[in-house]
Order: sequence, then structure tokens, then C-alpha cells
Amino acid sequence: MADAPLPTFADVEAAAARLRGLAHVTPVATSRTLDERLGARLFLKCENLQRGGAFKFRGAANALLQLDPGARERGVIAYSSGNHAQAIALAAKLLGSRATVVMPNDAPAAKRRATEGYGARVVPYDPATENREQIARAIAEREHPTLIPPYDHPHVIAGAGTAARELLQEVGPLDLLLVPCGGGGLLSGSALSARALAPKCRVVGVEPEAGDDANRSFRTRTLQTVHNPRTLADGARTPSLGKLTFPLVLQNVDDMATATDAQLVEAMRFAWERMKLVVEPTGVLGLAAAFAGTVPVTGLRVGVILSGGNVDLAEAGRLFAG
Amino acid sequence: MADAPLPTFADVEAAAARLRGLAHVTPVATSRTLDERLGARLFLKCENLQRGGAFKFRGAANALLQLDPGARERGVIAYSSGNHAQAIALAAKLLGSRATVVMPNDAPAAKRRATEGYGARVVPYDPATENREQIARAIAEREHPTLIPPYDHPHVIAGAGTAARELLQEVGPLDLLLVPCGGGGLLSGSALSARALAPKCRVVGVEPEAGDDANRSFRTRTLQTVHNPRTLADGARTPSLGKLTFPLVLQNVDDMATATDAQLVEAMRFAWERMKLVVEPTGVLGLAAAFAGTVPVTGLRVGVILSGGNVDLAEAGRLFAG
Repeated sequence: MADAPLPTFADVEAAAARLRGLAHVTPVATSRTLDERLGARLFLKCENLQRGGAFKFRGAANALLQLDPGARERGVIAYSSGNHAQAIALAAKLLGSRATVVMPNDAPAAKRRATEGYGARVVPYDPATENREQIARAIAEREHPTLIPPYDHPHVIAGAGTAARELLQEVGPLDLLLVPCGGGGLLSGSALSARALAPKCRVVGVEPEAGDDANRSFRTRTLQTVHNPRTLADGARTPSLGKLTFPLVLQNVDDMATATDAQLVEAMRFAWERMKLVVEPTGVLGLAAAFAGTVPVTGLRVGVILSGGNVDLAEAGRLFAG
Repeated sequence: MADAPLPTFADVEAAAARLRGLAHVTPVATSRTLDERLGARLFLKCENLQRGGAFKFRGAANALLQLDPGARERGVIAYSSGNHAQAIALAAKLLGSRATVVMPNDAPAAKRRATEGYGARVVPYDPATENREQIARAIAEREHPTLIPPYDHPHVIAGAGTAARELLQEVGPLDLLLVPCGGGGLLSGSALSARALAPKCRVVGVEPEAGDDANRSFRTRTLQTVHNPRTLADGARTPSLGKLTFPLVLQNVDDMATATDAQLVEAMRFAWERMKLVVEPTGVLGLAAAFAGTVPVTGLRVGVILSGGNVDLAEAGRLFAG
């Protein structure tokens, strides 16, 4: 992969054409209360309203659409207990392929049900006694599925970039774009769109404070890792940026920031209570940085990507009560 | 009031013209998962995304806009601890009037804060030792505000009817329209719009099973009442239909139905979890009736009014956990 070409905005454009009529063009939400509170104009791209409940569907579908008929017939495989699993499952169902999702057997039952609900085969494994590479090898030898990784893949990155492209096309120039960052797929794809469509727009990635590997990688220009950080933002517990997303972030992103769990809950509360939008902790990373003032927004036109809305409602209720 | 003329669709049209640029034209949400599950096409009118978080803003603003400058200057008064209070407070703020809201002192702190947050003066009273008519009389003698009732007022009903008008104009003919029913303002206003714009559309009002006074009034053609029913649908705990809404419901509504609290929670769970929309228990009355099959929807094009989204998030979390 060291020599894999990095995706470009042309790939994002091609992805957008492929996804037409398949992925939702998600709405952009605004709030006068929010704008008054922050002294800025905020445009929230509602990827929580994307199919499967997160932006991940864009990348998954873009990857699946580029498989030849034989490969699509053999099926795809993913390792995930999160939004990528649901995205792969839904994309495979809609595109006449079949998905296998390898998931630790302690994954939340709701996530397993959702993935199976989209028609995927879930292969559980015991992370204490088995390793997923073994599981994967056994399936690969039998069925030869195509592996679709959650972020470090050019088609996945290009697909993810279509959300920011839509946002910029709908609302026009922005001064700042705030993007959640886990493995960096959404962030690097968004930055490709911003560089092409809004060259003056600063792109800032936001990750959880407890998992600030991408912040450190960005500042040291050397890939840093983190091990299973304790954060509510379960979609951003990834160990590091990837072989593709790291150079893309270095090239196209202007700055990185973090948000604490308390800041995530405050931003979620605003989104749920005032905007009536269910957004997951990872999904409000950008909004939380704006609220907390970590990234100054006063006087600016600010795009914020709300990356997803898949969350256990009872758990979220406890956060709001706490 | 016995001779007060009933509002007509012309009043709804006039209200729509008055509200242009002031009330949101709320989005219509759809879900393939929902449609597949029910074997129908559902169009959910998102009044939870209306200003103030509920359809109530339409009626409040329509009433305020018809006050002469002197009356607007003297201010308006409402008795409510719910969505009407917030609607009156917000409309008064936006239209340069001032609102007094008389609220029992045991109303949820969040609701009081929200009402005060919109700039209203909240006058608390002790329902055990005071009666609100006394409170009101004292304020009336001093300040001469205009009372804006929560539903039984022609301007309030006409304003409420603009939501169904927008829905029908956006999605075209419907076979069925499901509308939450408390005091009947939203229901009778919606029915005026449906009668005019979609004469073949059946209009069905849905109220909580524990507070089925409007169902009984509809069937007996005699006004029935209920006293403080135990239901999650706090916006539909009203004692009865009103002097205007009762005849309007008899004239223009095709049927009435009920939903249990368990059905409300199921519908809320779908709205929150799958559609990422925060809707309050009262707001999903129509959706709950469709889900439960109480009102058959198979094969139909169905409009559903999601009337509001103001709910305590921690309490809702407990419902989802239970």
C-alpha cells in the first residue's frame, strides 16, 4: 500500500456520480439559537440522516459499486462492530452482493441486530481467545470475499468526501469546516472537497481528547497511535490514522483539535433538545469544538459535519441525566 | 362564544400568508424502512422542527399578528406549562410584544427555563392554594393583556391548520391523514386543510387511550370530558374538545382512534432510533396508531403530523430503557 495513489477530488466527483439516487443528499440544518449563542453562522450537514444512520454508507457503497460482477457475487467482508458494519451490510443488500461482518462477541446486541437486519451474515469471535485475522483467513480461503476496510481505502475516502462536497455546493463558501476524526477517512475526504471547492476554507479535524493520536501525528508529522482510548466517541477509538489518510491529512487539513466527553455531552444535548436531531457522541465532535471555543468560530461561516446518529437511546438518556 | 363563527380554510390560507418567513416550512421526512414495515407510503410532517419545537408556534404567531398595535404593546397572557407557553413566549419576542405565562409552580424546571429563555415573564402559582383565574384577574386589571388560549380560538386553529396545508401542497394527494388530538386545535385545523385540498383524504384524530374524551365525544356527538388522564402524552391531557374545536371535529374529521403508552414508546423508539428525530410522546400519536394497526394503512399514502419534540431527554431515556 506504500505506493497506492492517494485519492483526489476527481475521485470524490466520480463517487458522487456513482452514489446519485443511492445515497441520500442529506439536509443541512441551521439554528438561529445556535448562531446567536456562538456569534457565527453554522451549517450542520446531517449525515445522521444518511442511509444506515451515518456517512459510512457513502464509502461502503462507493467501494461496492466498483467491484466487478464476479467479485460482487462472491461478496464483501468487513471487521467492525460499528457504523461501518451497518453501512457494508446495507450497501451489499441494495447492490445485490452479500456481506460478512466479523464482530467481537461482546459487541452491543443492538448493533448486531441492526447489521443482521440489513441482511448481513455476522460472524462473531471471542476477542479473548481468537484473533480476527484467523477468522478472516478461514472465510477468505472458502469464499474469496473482497475486504472493505473502514477508512484506509481510496474508494472509501472518496465516498466519504461526497458529504462535504454536497454541503459546499448547497451553502456556498465557508470560512471553516469542522469534521470528526477517527481513522481520518471522513476528514481526508472532506478536505479534498474543501480544497477544491472552497480554497480559503480552513479544515479542522476534531477527535476525542482521550484519543488524540491524530492531533499528535499532525503536529509531529509522524504517525502516532493510541490504544483503545476511553471516550464516549466510540466511532473515534481507532488506533491511528491510516497509510492513506495520514498523508492526506498532512496535505489538506489546516489544524486538529480535541473535545472532552463532557463537551460531547453538551453538544449532544443541544442537538437533541433544541434541534431535535439524534446525533451520536462521535457525530458531535465538530459541534463540541465550536461550542467549547476550542476552535474559534466568532464571525465565521462554519460547516460542521454531524457524522452519524447510531446510539443506544437508553445509554444516551443516562448521559443526559448524569 | 356560542355564536363565534367557526374558522374556515380561507382563514388557514390567510394564516399561511401571515406566517410566511416567520414560521418554518418544516421538512417532510420519509423512511423506506418504515414504508416496508407498514406496506404503505408515509409522509411525516416534522413540526418537532418548528420554531419553539412544536406546531403551537403557528397558532400563537397567527393570533399575535392580528392584534392591533395597542394590544400588542399591552402584551399577551397564556396559561400553560407546555408547548403553548413556549410558543406564546417566542411569538411575543419575535413580534415585539411581551408575554406573561401563568404556570403551576410544580411545572418541570426545564419548561419554565425554556419559556423564560424566550423572554416571557412566568407567573407561578400554587395549584393547591390558588386558582389561576384569580391570578389572571389581578394581572388583567393591572395590564389588560390579551388572553391567547391554547386551542379554542379561531386564529389559533387557523394557524395550526397551516401545517397540514404545507404537507398536502408538498406531497400531493393523500388517502389518510393522522393527527394527534388533545384539545383538537391541530386536528380541526388540519381537517380544514384536508377538506379543501384533498377531499378524498380520510382525516383521523388520535388521542391517548387513557384520555379518550374526544373519541367518546365524536361517537356520541355530545361533549365528553376526562380529568387529568395518566398518559405519557402530556400535550393531550386536556379535559375536552372546545366550543369551536368540537363542532369542527364533528364536521370535518372522519374518525377518531387511540394509542396506548406502550404504543407511543414503540413509535418514539422508531422515530428516534431509525429516523434520528426527537419527537415527544404526544407528537407520535398518529405514528403509533399506524404502527399498532389501530388505523389500517396498508397500501395507502399516509400523512402523519409529528406535532412536537419538546421532551426531557433523561426521562425519555428511561422510557427507552424500561
